[in-house]
Amino acid sequence: MPVTTPRATAGAAASDSHVHDAVARSFAERLRRTRSRMEELDVDVLLLSQGGDLPWLTGYTAMPLERLTVLVVRPGDQPVLLVPALEEPRVTRRGELFDVRPWSDVEDPLDLVSDLVGRRCSGRVGLSDQAWCKTLLGLQARIGAARFVAASLVTAPLRAVKDELEAEMLTRVAHAADDVARAIQASEVRFVGRTERAVADEIAERLLAAGHDRVDFTIVGSGPNAASPHHESGARVIGPDETVVCDFGGRMTVPGTDVGYCSDITRTVVTGRCSREVAECYAVLQEAQEAAVRSASSGVPAEDVDRAARSVIEDAGLGGAFIHRTGHGIGIETHEEPYIVSGNTAPLVAGNAFSVEPGIYLPGRFGMRLEDIVLATPTGPRRLNEAPHELVCVEA
Amino acid sequence: MPVTTPRATAGAAASDSHVHDAVARSFAERLRRTRSRMEELDVDVLLLSQGGDLPWLTGYTAMPLERLTVLVVRPGDQPVLLVPALEEPRVTRRGELFDVRPWSDVEDPLDLVSDLVGRRCSGRVGLSDQAWCKTLLGLQARIGAARFVAASLVTAPLRAVKDELEAEMLTRVAHAADDVARAIQASEVRFVGRTERAVADEIAERLLAAGHDRVDFTIVGSGPNAASPHHESGARVIGPDETVVCDFGGRMTVPGTDVGYCSDITRTVVTGRCSREVAECYAVLQEAQEAAVRSASSGVPAEDVDRAARSVIEDAGLGGAFIHRTGHGIGIETHEEPYIVSGNTAPLVAGNAFSVEPGIYLPGRFGMRLEDIVLATPTGPRRLNEAPHELVCVEA
Repeated sequence: MPVTTPRATAGAAASDSHVHDAVARSFAERLRRTRSRMEELDVDVLLLSQGGDLPWLTGYTAMPLERLTVLVVRPGDQPVLLVPALEEPRVTRRGELFDVRPWSDVEDPLDLVSDLVGRRCSGRVGLSDQAWCKTLLGLQARIGAARFVAASLVTAPLRAVKDELEAEMLTRVAHAADDVARAIQASEVRFVGRTERAVADEIAERLLAAGHDRVDFTIVGSGPNAASPHHESGARVIGPDETVVCDFGGRMTVPGTDVGYCSDITRTVVTGRCSREVAECYAVLQEAQEAAVRSASSGVPAEDVDRAARSVIEDAGLGGAFIHRTGHGIGIETHEEPYIVSGNTAPLVAGNAFSVEPGIYLPGRFGMRLEDIVLATPTGPRRLNEAPHELVCVEA
Repeated sequence: MPVTTPRATAGAAASDSHVHDAVARSFAERLRRTRSRMEELDVDVLLLSQGGDLPWLTGYTAMPLERLTVLVVRPGDQPVLLVPALEEPRVTRRGELFDVRPWSDVEDPLDLVSDLVGRRCSGRVGLSDQAWCKTLLGLQARIGAARFVAASLVTAPLRAVKDELEAEMLTRVAHAADDVARAIQASEVRFVGRTERAVADEIAERLLAAGHDRVDFTIVGSGPNAASPHHESGARVIGPDETVVCDFGGRMTVPGTDVGYCSDITRTVVTGRCSREVAECYAVLQEAQEAAVRSASSGVPAEDVDRAARSVIEDAGLGGAFIHRTGHGIGIETHEEPYIVSGNTAPLVAGNAFSVEPGIYLPGRFGMRLEDIVLATPTGPRRLNEAPHELVCVEA
């Protein structure tokens, strides 16, 4: 999902010292809970690099390049952030949260990490799920007795339960995405006669204007392209009387940090007249999505939410046209735990935030998807997206 | 480097059947060379996922998400591309080059890969350097006797030698970046009174207008921010008589593929009057860059090119202000082999393409960098960037 435009942190919000305090408290609390879970799981050291764990714990995001950035968390000691020297000026220090150790281009960062872990360590060492394979191979060669595990063993259940600040950020960014969805549904965005790419670019601009700091993806799939769920918006000119899947999302930065929370919404529109077949399929889709959202209470196994959507689509004889899981968790990353998929028997808990996005895809003909972000709360599921769910005919 | 806007493949170029034939020949030749090197190095299986190896070999880029895409290359057999079912419609099949095996959300892709490799395999298995650590851990648990190595062992020396098509793409995209650099130097881009972010956005638009299909990064570091080499362009308003480092790059897609080649250029300008100190530092910088480029002939160890630049800066008493290596290879990825860094004793070979980008950074005061992409050819180093190298005063 390569569409990305970063923005500076919104000036107004950044001056909100209330938010800054909440942010500082959140980071301290996350570190406390991480250490406690490391002890429970007998994980001696945690090494956080690429992916969402590092920004979740420190407010700092590693650059996605070959120079290694890693936070080393050991029991008792202050965490140490190893960072490329030329990126050190980007790091915001957070009081006592972590030390910074810049490394230069003539040092070997894997040697530095290995020394911090201890070359003779024979315990469990957690490494970020998305750390490069080359990093793990290098560490395994240097710390031969350690038993490496995916850091998500420690962090995923913690990150999957959103705290108050995170729930607030996800709500705000969802509402910003809603603004764009509503503009599409109100025919403010022209479709017919334009390329998918042109519409996708306009959606990206509107996401930024609505308060996103960065755009992550804008899928505009029209006509037969709508049957490709991860279609890359292209040169196809959108015609009349077509279904168009619009799936888009981006991030809103937490003031004073380098970390954003993600939006992800899908609405399907018809350009002009809607065929009876499309209308009937959409009625099934909407009922499936509604059933899944309604079922998504804490205590319910994640796979039951998938089942709720899938049953409705299967009962309508369209089971084969729903070719993906029902949803994914969302937070610092667009896709994170919990996954709403058959086989995930873990019960939802209050604080889980995830997408509910069934789709119906008829190859060569048309496709449709309907997606909201849902927060599981102690009083039941709460949709964070509020844009209308009906199939809207635009430019009719 | 998060600024990214993908574009559809340029229509005019895509219709060029000459290019299509060259592309097809390139992929076939790359596979042949890869297999031959696997045999030499006794690597039984190659697993290509995230990063540049997969697009280099197939023209297909894996989405940077949690669902696994992997090309399995085994001796004798047709390579198999395991791809998430919902992304299968994005794959362009290339005749006999590889088979496609879509996997659904209820399958375990690591089980599928392990079956293709053979659960009892005890040979060397190469996995993409940038594959997720979690993928490697999962494969190690399933194929316990295999000896995993970084796929770059096989691919990096092949990818580092650009073929004719790649050299042509790198030249074209470099010239497109030159157009933007020249516009900056000609004062077509306003600096004073605007934020770094606004200037960065304009540079991104100009990169697209000049023929890039996607923007990868736009660093605009002004005044003291110019002393942070990977500065994130922000809300700082650029003033008069400041140095501004402009470092930007993006990609141009090879027609008929999902793969782009990268540009990466840095020019430093002064907004108004240039102090004597800045002018003197820049004279050193330009001499250092010229010395490094001149030294970059095939047969010369990569670290000697770094030394050539560094000596000039050290001799001027500014050694401590040049805080990074001199350069990096470039191709499908912005950073790839060969790295122009102390300790890299491997000799350059004809076909290597890399940046030469010394910098001088005085924290809290100012910074400067000068960067070109250079191609090592049988007749000596060739700069692919041609925008003027002098320190230009804009809005003087």
